[in-house]
Amino acid sequence: MSHSNEVQGVGVIGLGAMGRGTAMALHESQLDVVGCDIVDEARLAFEREGGKCVASPVELAHCNVIVVLVVNADQVETVLFGEQGVAPCLAEGSLVIQCATVAPAFARDLNARLEAMGLAMLDAPVSGGAAKARRGELSVMASGTPGAFSQAEPVLDAMAATVYRLGDAAGVGSSMKLVNQLLAGVHIATAAEAMALGLRMGLDPQTIYDVITHSAGNSWMFENRVPHILKGDYSPLSAVDIFVKDLNLVHETGRELAISTPVAASALQQFTAAKGAGFGREDDSAVIKVYQRLSGITLPDAANDSGGV
Amino acid sequence: MSHSNEVQGVGVIGLGAMGRGTAMALHESQLDVVGCDIVDEARLAFEREGGKCVASPVELAHCNVIVVLVVNADQVETVLFGEQGVAPCLAEGSLVIQCATVAPAFARDLNARLEAMGLAMLDAPVSGGAAKARRGELSVMASGTPGAFSQAEPVLDAMAATVYRLGDAAGVGSSMKLVNQLLAGVHIATAAEAMALGLRMGLDPQTIYDVITHSAGNSWMFENRVPHILKGDYSPLSAVDIFVKDLNLVHETGRELAISTPVAASALQQFTAAKGAGFGREDDSAVIKVYQRLSGITLPDAANDSGGV
Repeated sequence: MSHSNEVQGVGVIGLGAMGRGTAMALHESQLDVVGCDIVDEARLAFEREGGKCVASPVELAHCNVIVVLVVNADQVETVLFGEQGVAPCLAEGSLVIQCATVAPAFARDLNARLEAMGLAMLDAPVSGGAAKARRGELSVMASGTPGAFSQAEPVLDAMAATVYRLGDAAGVGSSMKLVNQLLAGVHIATAAEAMALGLRMGLDPQTIYDVITHSAGNSWMFENRVPHILKGDYSPLSAVDIFVKDLNLVHETGRELAISTPVAASALQQFTAAKGAGFGREDDSAVIKVYQRLSGITLPDAANDSGGV
Repeated sequence: MSHSNEVQGVGVIGLGAMGRGTAMALHESQLDVVGCDIVDEARLAFEREGGKCVASPVELAHCNVIVVLVVNADQVETVLFGEQGVAPCLAEGSLVIQCATVAPAFARDLNARLEAMGLAMLDAPVSGGAAKARRGELSVMASGTPGAFSQAEPVLDAMAATVYRLGDAAGVGSSMKLVNQLLAGVHIATAAEAMALGLRMGLDPQTIYDVITHSAGNSWMFENRVPHILKGDYSPLSAVDIFVKDLNLVHETGRELAISTPVAASALQQFTAAKGAGFGREDDSAVIKVYQRLSGITLPDAANDSGGV
């Protein structure tokens, strides 16, 4: 690796579910990591685990790799270009690894603006959840120039089990993530809908799970999320709000490109209703409560949990 | 096994994709099988493989187990109770194994009518496809009395790899099948929608498949059906028409029980549009042609197939 590609400091912006785990995984590798979050508790939690922290992105100006693990495009905008944004202060040739789920058009525009400032960008949305983030085992759907990939390599090695290299152009990583989110979001809503119909027909919920996970109706999300419903445990691993956001990105991208996505639109309405009913911060499997509120079904209750799943 | 449970002859009604394979699997076991189909070619195909055939259900009156593998409830009605229907001619204590995908309410009503005639019924929808049917490796979602299960045992042993025993009541097997079909149908439409959006955003279709099948957006149906799209091969393994029918069953059952299923409803509209556009008899993955007709995407072409999948 050439000298210019050496990582002189990694700033991780956003110490939420994904960010804190990733920052810790990077910290445990040989990298010099500084975390950044405006939320005091997020910084304190990272510091308790031995991490270094700052409250403002601009304090990461000495880093030559910035990993952006915030929730949406507005936050990406703020941490890079806002009043305390770090982008204008980075040394020429520094790299921004953009990991948020954003519209492909936003990723392309962001890349153009960073390039104009002499900075490199990798469009690199992640998936895998908080537990895999902590183990440095995320999946990364990434696109960018060979130079950006080379510069990112030590960081990606420490945070990801799998890196899909999707080509040179910014936006491709974000496009692939959007395809995944369309499927994931619809599958969660459909798992809830199928469980609700099954319960309404009088089927035993555990039996539905056992049969469907061995049948053609199975999905990764059905298998992963329905146990939350069976336990009556809606503690958020990934929240309803995330799919309101991500299926809205699908909708907006479809509108821009004039391609209709009616199945995703219907799932979006169910997540939107779940948010409207007050379940936005619960686990995304809580979308089943929309069906519960509109029918006579009784959901499995945490208090009645037999510990079967 | 008691004498009364001995299988004295198995009549298989319906020699289509599932029926012919199942009839052959039963024929190759020690059972005395007679196939039945009104379609000449279906009977000839079974006879060429060494099977015995009749054209009319009433000619199966000597059998004491009848396996009904027709497409829908109307056909079940006709082959059992129509002008040439076999039900009134069966000896008392004979068993009807009802394998079609039908509404749970229909299965319950059918059971009551057969019981009133002194006949037993197993509500036993199947899944697995034609290839597994031929190998006697179907999955069966079955409900019925212990007596009916015991009587069915030699037949189920020969036709199924897995039998889910879902309790005593008719309708439970059909309810479970309906839950599976809701999921399967939505997942196929969503796979098509996600591929269409990905193509519209400029992603490589094979790359989408490779990434998604290793990501949280995966489903059994995505993994199984998208290769048909990648090959541009819409030869029907299971046709668009089947999901128009099965998602209509979901809709009708939801209407009866007053539980809304908006995601399934949206998928149903896409299959209905595919049928309206003339693709009803093509493979169910041809639902992507609805998206193709309404956008600028170019689908992979059979002629351009690089044999990559």
